[in-house]
Amino acid sequence: MRIALGVSYNGGAYQGWQSQSSGLTIQDKLETALGKFTAQRVSTLCAGRTDAGVHGLMQVVHFDTELDRDTYSWVRGTNANLPRDIAVQWAVKTSREFHCRASALSRRYAYVLLESTIRPSVEFGRVGWTFGALDHDTMRQAADILLGEHDFSSFRASQCQALSPIKNLLEISLSKRGAYWRIEFEANAFLHHMIRNIMGCLVQIGQGKKPPEWMAEVLAARDRKAAAPTFSPDGLYFLGPRYDPKWGMPERTPAYDALP
Amino acid sequence: MRIALGVSYNGGAYQGWQSQSSGLTIQDKLETALGKFTAQRVSTLCAGRTDAGVHGLMQVVHFDTELDRDTYSWVRGTNANLPRDIAVQWAVKTSREFHCRASALSRRYAYVLLESTIRPSVEFGRVGWTFGALDHDTMRQAADILLGEHDFSSFRASQCQALSPIKNLLEISLSKRGAYWRIEFEANAFLHHMIRNIMGCLVQIGQGKKPPEWMAEVLAARDRKAAAPTFSPDGLYFLGPRYDPKWGMPERTPAYDALP
Repeated sequence: MRIALGVSYNGGAYQGWQSQSSGLTIQDKLETALGKFTAQRVSTLCAGRTDAGVHGLMQVVHFDTELDRDTYSWVRGTNANLPRDIAVQWAVKTSREFHCRASALSRRYAYVLLESTIRPSVEFGRVGWTFGALDHDTMRQAADILLGEHDFSSFRASQCQALSPIKNLLEISLSKRGAYWRIEFEANAFLHHMIRNIMGCLVQIGQGKKPPEWMAEVLAARDRKAAAPTFSPDGLYFLGPRYDPKWGMPERTPAYDALP
Repeated sequence: MRIALGVSYNGGAYQGWQSQSSGLTIQDKLETALGKFTAQRVSTLCAGRTDAGVHGLMQVVHFDTELDRDTYSWVRGTNANLPRDIAVQWAVKTSREFHCRASALSRRYAYVLLESTIRPSVEFGRVGWTFGALDHDTMRQAADILLGEHDFSSFRASQCQALSPIKNLLEISLSKRGAYWRIEFEANAFLHHMIRNIMGCLVQIGQGKKPPEWMAEVLAARDRKAAAPTFSPDGLYFLGPRYDPKWGMPERTPAYDALP
């Protein structure tokens, strides 16, 4: 039997998603908890690895097991063994045709950014920060340049393991609530650091340090050195993958409404 | 010269506001930072002490000093010496007639509460939690019973140092955004643990474990043992005091918009 889980986490205390020998990753904590609950070794695959400090509102993992438990037992039994900054939100019993990574039609992320002369405090670790005011219209123009299928090599970390730098960026939405910007991204898939590198460029454009057309130059260069420095992980949230509705996977978790 | 500061903080890492010999309180961190910036010993008074784990969106403090710096220097110079979960948001030069505690006309707090079968994770430490669903109308009825001037002894912690248990509760507002309740309180002043004790009762009523009229019984008993257990500090935020506009103090800080 294949089990899919939706997992939420605050990434602030972890060395990212992917298992490491340190054991200080979210995957390590999840597999340890599943191991305690099942008294078996459980290996998981995920829909999208996240970096150190990046949060997950709905990471999706799957694993195969012979154990037959009801779905709420999977949730409760795993959560009883997880630290307080990680929680399974839902479990779905599915078939071996479902694959959390390969079946994903797209992935969605949100970046939350405080625009203030004062750095974050109450919300430290959960929002990025820009001292200077941002202009919506120039950021909108720059974001539109990125939409569609492009070679995103300029926004790709050197350690990226993707087979191709060509991705299809389906949507970038910009909104603001008080002093907090929320910038949501949807693409078929993302390169390593792609959103944080795009954010670095968007903020420079929003601050007027670069014109919107600069985004086209950066994109055309297909060279990481052409883009701005990688932006902070603090404000980045993996909202989750989208699947064909036939799989019956939830589309979001309640914590989406806890974002500014 | 008297200086007033508006201070935001995440209380999760601290033993409350009030200075202690441990040095692990928000007042200790603030006074240490002011001491480094001014090279003098600075003692502050605050508008409302908060407990361990309680957050502040706009604590207001004041102190007297001979130093003449512009207001932005007070903000920047202090923040340079504060940990990342505490930040001064504004400074106002005022007169000795202003007193951050005595001049406050009222205080406002918000309690943020996740209603979910799954405990918090991404938002751990920043929201309270109720497993069971809450009913708005019964909580509204119960909240209305508390409005006005009453003896709130039933909601008062044994270690409370207030001279009188009689307070004037001006407003309780209830709203919900997705799975997150936000319950805001305004009173001339609050007793120690008063909001967390009221929250304990409201949640029991919202879950249908007690009828709304039970709140009247608890209030009339004037006995702490009549009320529900003290609710978690995690979701409690001091929004700040209100002052006469003549003092020119800001009414809120940007982080208000970061609450769910």
